[in-house]
Amino acid sequence: VATAFTELFHIRHPIALAPMGGSAGGALAAAVSNAGGLGLVGGGREDCDWITRELQLVTAATAATGRPWGIGFQAWSATEEAVALSLTFAPAAVMLSFGDPRRLAAPVADAGIPLIVQVTDRREAAHALELGAAVIVAQGLEAGGHSGGRATLPFVPAVVDLAGTTPVLAAGGIADGRGLAAALTLGAAGVLVGTRFQATPEALVSPQTAQAILDHRGEDTEKTRLFDIAGRRVTWPARYAARVLRNDFLEEWRGHEELLEADDDAKRRFREAVDAGDPSAAPIWASEAIDLIDTVVPAGELVERLVRSAHDAMAGAAHALDPGPTRA
Amino acid sequence: VATAFTELFHIRHPIALAPMGGSAGGALAAAVSNAGGLGLVGGGREDCDWITRELQLVTAATAATGRPWGIGFQAWSATEEAVALSLTFAPAAVMLSFGDPRRLAAPVADAGIPLIVQVTDRREAAHALELGAAVIVAQGLEAGGHSGGRATLPFVPAVVDLAGTTPVLAAGGIADGRGLAAALTLGAAGVLVGTRFQATPEALVSPQTAQAILDHRGEDTEKTRLFDIAGRRVTWPARYAARVLRNDFLEEWRGHEELLEADDDAKRRFREAVDAGDPSAAPIWASEAIDLIDTVVPAGELVERLVRSAHDAMAGAAHALDPGPTRA
Repeated sequence: VATAFTELFHIRHPIALAPMGGSAGGALAAAVSNAGGLGLVGGGREDCDWITRELQLVTAATAATGRPWGIGFQAWSATEEAVALSLTFAPAAVMLSFGDPRRLAAPVADAGIPLIVQVTDRREAAHALELGAAVIVAQGLEAGGHSGGRATLPFVPAVVDLAGTTPVLAAGGIADGRGLAAALTLGAAGVLVGTRFQATPEALVSPQTAQAILDHRGEDTEKTRLFDIAGRRVTWPARYAARVLRNDFLEEWRGHEELLEADDDAKRRFREAVDAGDPSAAPIWASEAIDLIDTVVPAGELVERLVRSAHDAMAGAAHALDPGPTRA
Repeated sequence: VATAFTELFHIRHPIALAPMGGSAGGALAAAVSNAGGLGLVGGGREDCDWITRELQLVTAATAATGRPWGIGFQAWSATEEAVALSLTFAPAAVMLSFGDPRRLAAPVADAGIPLIVQVTDRREAAHALELGAAVIVAQGLEAGGHSGGRATLPFVPAVVDLAGTTPVLAAGGIADGRGLAAALTLGAAGVLVGTRFQATPEALVSPQTAQAILDHRGEDTEKTRLFDIAGRRVTWPARYAARVLRNDFLEEWRGHEELLEADDDAKRRFREAVDAGDPSAAPIWASEAIDLIDTVVPAGELVERLVRSAHDAMAGAAHALDPGPTRA
């Protein structure tokens, strides 16, 4: 019972926690790792105080089990200082997503730590392989938050064909055991799951955010750049739009990206509304797979449920095919 | 060895040919049916001479085997006459795609023929179930040609959960056995495959079109309404954009849909270029899964390859999961 991914990290289940900035903290990562997956802390905000606190948490919570955990950063924005700080905690893996990973890959390689690189098209996949990534994450546009333009179902086998013996994780649109089973039959060595883990008590999200994920459906999500344009960090690369639940701000500005870009007053009002916790403005990142999420489940139990239901999905599908010689 | 779909039509393999307008003719449909799948003729053009000729072909080519075949129409545009004509050939199934199926469903039901309805979101799926569809096709935006806004991997299980005992086929982005295996683990009772069957000798496409599918990659495709706007049938519902290989016409007009709509001269030039076979103008519909297509294969052999490689993909994935009780 193993894949190239589970063997690399000596873990039991082919499930990684997506390192969601701000919400995948040490408690969530530890719960996933202690259940036999690979928990990845979301270092996205590059806030060294936050990183220190959450990595102290995950280190303490996995000390008794000795289970591996990792941390993820945004390649286009993370600081060398944040990555160096994380390396002092001896993570089992560092993941880089969105943009050219070369700048931050070197210190990770120098520390002898396996590098996981998330890619959104075949060109990025080829670059990650050249760079010597130990694991490639092939991410589709179904994902919550930022993503590229490929869809998971056809993209994953295309990356598997490029990757040779390098393990590939499927990401984007996977929220239940059927998605895990499908990813494995596509040739992936595991999955990276984000939004589904927002609906756990360990996620660092508000109860309102978790409830919104339970209440909405895939058709309520949309990919947009508006929140990147209005937010404080306008330099998000334009090719990565983000999937969110629709809200009033999105409805008001959709199709007027250039106007918003030039409207400092509107951007200021947006930021004030977000700071005030106004749900008509603040973005809720959400996968298209929220159709499949209807309960809050502890993260460790969720890992076990995903595996059991994936096993059942495969068993159920095994009798659908008759590959034998043509019958007379 | 069966699914609810293969049992309904007494067929061996859970594979249906997408009824691609103009290119899924009687020879291709018969090849798929005679190989144990369900061949569907693409009645999209509503040209009664074409339909008569192709249905004579498929009837003759399946007479010896007695295998079932069907025909598909666009719900928003097909004429009652074309559907009535097709019913005189006693198809085993009629499929309706894109738009409200109610207008054309009644004569099909009156003839006692199972109705297959393709859907692109959960609302359309609920309507199709209310209408009594015998089979639902859940189609994702990876598909070649027209589609909605959902992606196959998360959309299929959401429709399966709605559909109860009604079989669901997965469509969009499926071009090899891994995609077939993934669809089955997602809970689908089979797949509907389009673009992969364009690269067969039986498809009614030019050699240039088949070669373009082999030569290009998923990143070379894009969803657009430009060809619908410039073409003769401007009434394609706006919510179904079409995935094509990029060409000069698309590069020139992308983002200027409203200008093109108003520019009768540009539309006339486009139509003349298409009539002259100019590849810089004429659209080539193509799935995002063209990464996985690199050879022209006879359609019957392709059906068998899909099943064999799906079986292998499932066998390979079966050892990835350890659902047993937690180890000490």
